[in-house]
Amino acid sequence: MIAVSDATGRLAAALGDGPAARLAAAALIEADALGQPRFGIAMLDEWTADAAPALATGGGQAMSWLDCSSRFAPLAVAGATLDLTAAARRFGIAAVFLRGIRGFGRLAPFVRHIADAGLIGIAGAEGPPFVAAHGGRGPVIGTNPLALAMGEGPARVVIDVASSAATMADIRNARAAGTALPEGIALDAAGRPTTVAAEVAALLPRGGQVGSLLGLMVELMAGVAGGGRGDPRGRGVFMLALDPAGAGAEIDWKARLAGLKNDWTEGGGHWPKGGGVSPETVLDDAFGQRLEAALARINGRDAR
Amino acid sequence: MIAVSDATGRLAAALGDGPAARLAAAALIEADALGQPRFGIAMLDEWTADAAPALATGGGQAMSWLDCSSRFAPLAVAGATLDLTAAARRFGIAAVFLRGIRGFGRLAPFVRHIADAGLIGIAGAEGPPFVAAHGGRGPVIGTNPLALAMGEGPARVVIDVASSAATMADIRNARAAGTALPEGIALDAAGRPTTVAAEVAALLPRGGQVGSLLGLMVELMAGVAGGGRGDPRGRGVFMLALDPAGAGAEIDWKARLAGLKNDWTEGGGHWPKGGGVSPETVLDDAFGQRLEAALARINGRDAR
Repeated sequence: MIAVSDATGRLAAALGDGPAARLAAAALIEADALGQPRFGIAMLDEWTADAAPALATGGGQAMSWLDCSSRFAPLAVAGATLDLTAAARRFGIAAVFLRGIRGFGRLAPFVRHIADAGLIGIAGAEGPPFVAAHGGRGPVIGTNPLALAMGEGPARVVIDVASSAATMADIRNARAAGTALPEGIALDAAGRPTTVAAEVAALLPRGGQVGSLLGLMVELMAGVAGGGRGDPRGRGVFMLALDPAGAGAEIDWKARLAGLKNDWTEGGGHWPKGGGVSPETVLDDAFGQRLEAALARINGRDAR
Repeated sequence: MIAVSDATGRLAAALGDGPAARLAAAALIEADALGQPRFGIAMLDEWTADAAPALATGGGQAMSWLDCSSRFAPLAVAGATLDLTAAARRFGIAAVFLRGIRGFGRLAPFVRHIADAGLIGIAGAEGPPFVAAHGGRGPVIGTNPLALAMGEGPARVVIDVASSAATMADIRNARAAGTALPEGIALDAAGRPTTVAAEVAALLPRGGQVGSLLGLMVELMAGVAGGGRGDPRGRGVFMLALDPAGAGAEIDWKARLAGLKNDWTEGGGHWPKGGGVSPETVLDDAFGQRLEAALARINGRDAR
């Protein structure tokens, strides 16, 4: 049994203990605490002692492009998040495009960090082609999640939505369990709908055309403008931050956000909070053992 | 019978004949040519001789907020598009938030204009609450379209997707025709699914949760950050432009865009082009008469 705060602190120390290490560690531990272990410390399997340190551009540019293929992905995304936040504070709006990104977990903790700074954070990630276009037959884009966060406290909103109806992990799980898939989530190699996990050749977009176009938007930003598409070394990720306070006293965006949340929930809608866990949340012993093994590997191979 | 080019030229002249007038005129005439008259010159009904001229900020700021309630909306959006393009060329990335915008037509022609300048254009518009949240009972946001354009020539992409399954115009048409609505597009006043147009109290999001979250993102940007939400004088609109050429020779985004289009269409997907018509396209006499009437009103009330 280990609390989220302790696990985060120990992992952050192993990763170098700067702000980027703390953000990366918090993002990974949170995923395990949310019961999403494939976005959690499983990412540490990709850690190598010879990875280049996180880039620190200091936020000196409104637009930047970074090749992250020699970096540990969670640290690279965390470092980019910090620099982007600094750039958006300086310029009002900024964007960063990362490529060569291997597994980094969920987008939500990173856009939430931007929201913590009083900004709007938007991010998307492309990946290997598993998902068909709406009306299409074969895989052309990744599951391409898009995330947006703004606000603090009770009215905070954190959207993190995938553009596919299922993930490849869902397909693998159904295959291992021998269970049928729901209708409408996958196609076979001939482009026909299938519910047999072993026959899946492509996932379907979430919600039909609207999910397909959302996935295409993410591919255009992270894959085309960011250069991630088709890169065998990793994914493309884009992040954007902007400062709503630039409107000054004319627009009380915090009051409007609280009003929108009220209307949304009064109307029966679910206000998305994008996960997030209390520091006191306790993780089980199986997790504790996996964390110890990962820390031993990182600390042992560290030259210090 | 009148060609699109002639109609556009005459309307642009009546609206003042600067670049914003030409863009606004082209956007309206195009909608009529595409068979979408409610986004076309019908917007000229809102034109008044005493409307303030289009703002020209000259693109001197990366972020700007404009109260457009005293302006003719198509000209205000067109002027903001031109200024945003200049700002993004200068800063690499820029955004503008408009509020108090009455009917301005479709987003597609404006983001396409940004793409013509070699940039990526993104825009969204919020509006009066007609659409329920996913799982909700009553209307909380507008039909909230989101648009993105990039590229030129055959590989150009123009996405323009509404976040609701239908529009209020669809409901009015079905009510007038006495026909039933398709399943899954609307709720009655008690929050129950309905196919009776006269009973519709809310539209449903397009594609369920993914369309609902898309609509919420647009509301957060245009309604909350942009200050449009709940303004009785008009809608909120946000526009964002960024320059993919900032990556330099490292990333050939044009080649990647062409490659993505090829993969998408080879996989059976439809590549979105966002409308757009040839200047030689001919509009019918009924349109010609409506245009003459609108031009007479604009030119007659003009002091010149």
